[in-house]
Amino acid sequence: MVGVSERAETPPRAAEFEFDRDTAVEPLDGQGRFRAVISDRWNIGSAPNGGYLTSVAVSALAASVPHPDPLSVSSHFPGRTAPGPVEVHVEVLRAGRGLSTAVARLVQDDQVRVHVTATFGDLSAHDGPTAVSATPPALPPPEACVPVDPAIPGVPVMMGRVDLRLTAESAGFAVGHRRGEALMEGWIRFADGREADTRSLVFTVDSLPPTVFGLMETGWVPTIELTAHGRGRPAPGWLACSFRTRFLMEGYLEEDGEVWDSTGRLVALSRQLARIHT
Amino acid sequence: MVGVSERAETPPRAAEFEFDRDTAVEPLDGQGRFRAVISDRWNIGSAPNGGYLTSVAVSALAASVPHPDPLSVSSHFPGRTAPGPVEVHVEVLRAGRGLSTAVARLVQDDQVRVHVTATFGDLSAHDGPTAVSATPPALPPPEACVPVDPAIPGVPVMMGRVDLRLTAESAGFAVGHRRGEALMEGWIRFADGREADTRSLVFTVDSLPPTVFGLMETGWVPTIELTAHGRGRPAPGWLACSFRTRFLMEGYLEEDGEVWDSTGRLVALSRQLARIHT
Repeated sequence: MVGVSERAETPPRAAEFEFDRDTAVEPLDGQGRFRAVISDRWNIGSAPNGGYLTSVAVSALAASVPHPDPLSVSSHFPGRTAPGPVEVHVEVLRAGRGLSTAVARLVQDDQVRVHVTATFGDLSAHDGPTAVSATPPALPPPEACVPVDPAIPGVPVMMGRVDLRLTAESAGFAVGHRRGEALMEGWIRFADGREADTRSLVFTVDSLPPTVFGLMETGWVPTIELTAHGRGRPAPGWLACSFRTRFLMEGYLEEDGEVWDSTGRLVALSRQLARIHT
Repeated sequence: MVGVSERAETPPRAAEFEFDRDTAVEPLDGQGRFRAVISDRWNIGSAPNGGYLTSVAVSALAASVPHPDPLSVSSHFPGRTAPGPVEVHVEVLRAGRGLSTAVARLVQDDQVRVHVTATFGDLSAHDGPTAVSATPPALPPPEACVPVDPAIPGVPVMMGRVDLRLTAESAGFAVGHRRGEALMEGWIRFADGREADTRSLVFTVDSLPPTVFGLMETGWVPTIELTAHGRGRPAPGWLACSFRTRFLMEGYLEEDGEVWDSTGRLVALSRQLARIHT
């Protein structure tokens, strides 16, 4: 276990942690083309998780722009990506003094399966007024929450990559006890001890079970579009997550997410548009 | 004044209303290139409003995909667009049975100034469960709100395109009375009687004064990224709008928006990432 102060100066080596290994990209030509392999270890059913796919694109983007932190990442999912080789095609639209904007396309079989636009900046250089009117979700400590066991049949393979502790109310759906509210809350960290950073938050915002599981039994709830805002560099430790749907309308829903770090600071906001697959 | 039932079958003619005239696009080559002219009539200061610019891109997208309703529109703003001619370059990534995804780039001086990714669908074909846990904002009627007068010096030119009625609490900033909350609420409709539709909602979600005006005096608050979700086709009449910021952090803020139609139905959700320009 690496200490806090040491870790801040030692970025994780690519080979050490699952997330870095499975989101690694290799430049093909120095012209914005990268090669990557989509792992099946981040699947929900037979499909790779959308936040994981976006993170592969973000790896290629981060290698292409001068700023370290993805401040806003917008993903659309025109196709379904299969585990296996992909190309990532990056185009930098602007590399400015404070912000860079670039586009990445995850291409498989000559088709764009995921389209990501991101604006990067440097959170350590931000300087301006602060006024926060919200507080972290009131969660029992991780030890008092329900661990999601990837060994249980039906639990997505992806859950083996994380240590997810849902609140009892949020976990109830798994035993048929639905809370009557489209709210999913809990603590998360990587199972292998990798600490979160602004790049991995892009995955975190899509890593809890669908909010609607608190309301009803559904099939697959595929993401149509996912936007993540990186608002702070997370401190080491658990992340407190809260995902809520207020508007399920004719099968379409938004999922609004908040991710707070172990010091009680908001580090990411997210929203996705999804639909219940019938 | 066109009646409700008649209007539903009669889309506005391109030349009749300001919004349609100023977001019109002309195909250049049948290969996804369009020409448009950015009007200075939608300016905030000397810069065209971001929701207006996005709407020009959406015009080109709507002409290129088979589905009528923009369900999710993500705009990034790598450059500053000046009023005047632009090209809009559209690429359709997928035109599926239920959804289409396409990209539009607003290009000026050979630079991408606005990058828009949108997924379109057909809201009239949606079919699935509904569960809404939110209610429209509690606003006094439009007659009891404060009209924003575009003739007053300092009020953006864009305000001449709309009839905007802010609540007294939201309007207070204009006379130095800040409510102490980053919340901006009111009613809006087009000044020339054009009724809202799912395309114009992309503009509506960026049409109120910045939320932070309720907290402090600031300079320009440029949008970094704006995402709009079209969740319903609006009924004719006033739209009730509520925009809120919970996290102003070191000069960066999200603005979360809700737009409700005259029947009390949510028709759009939005979020933007912006920063206070110092």
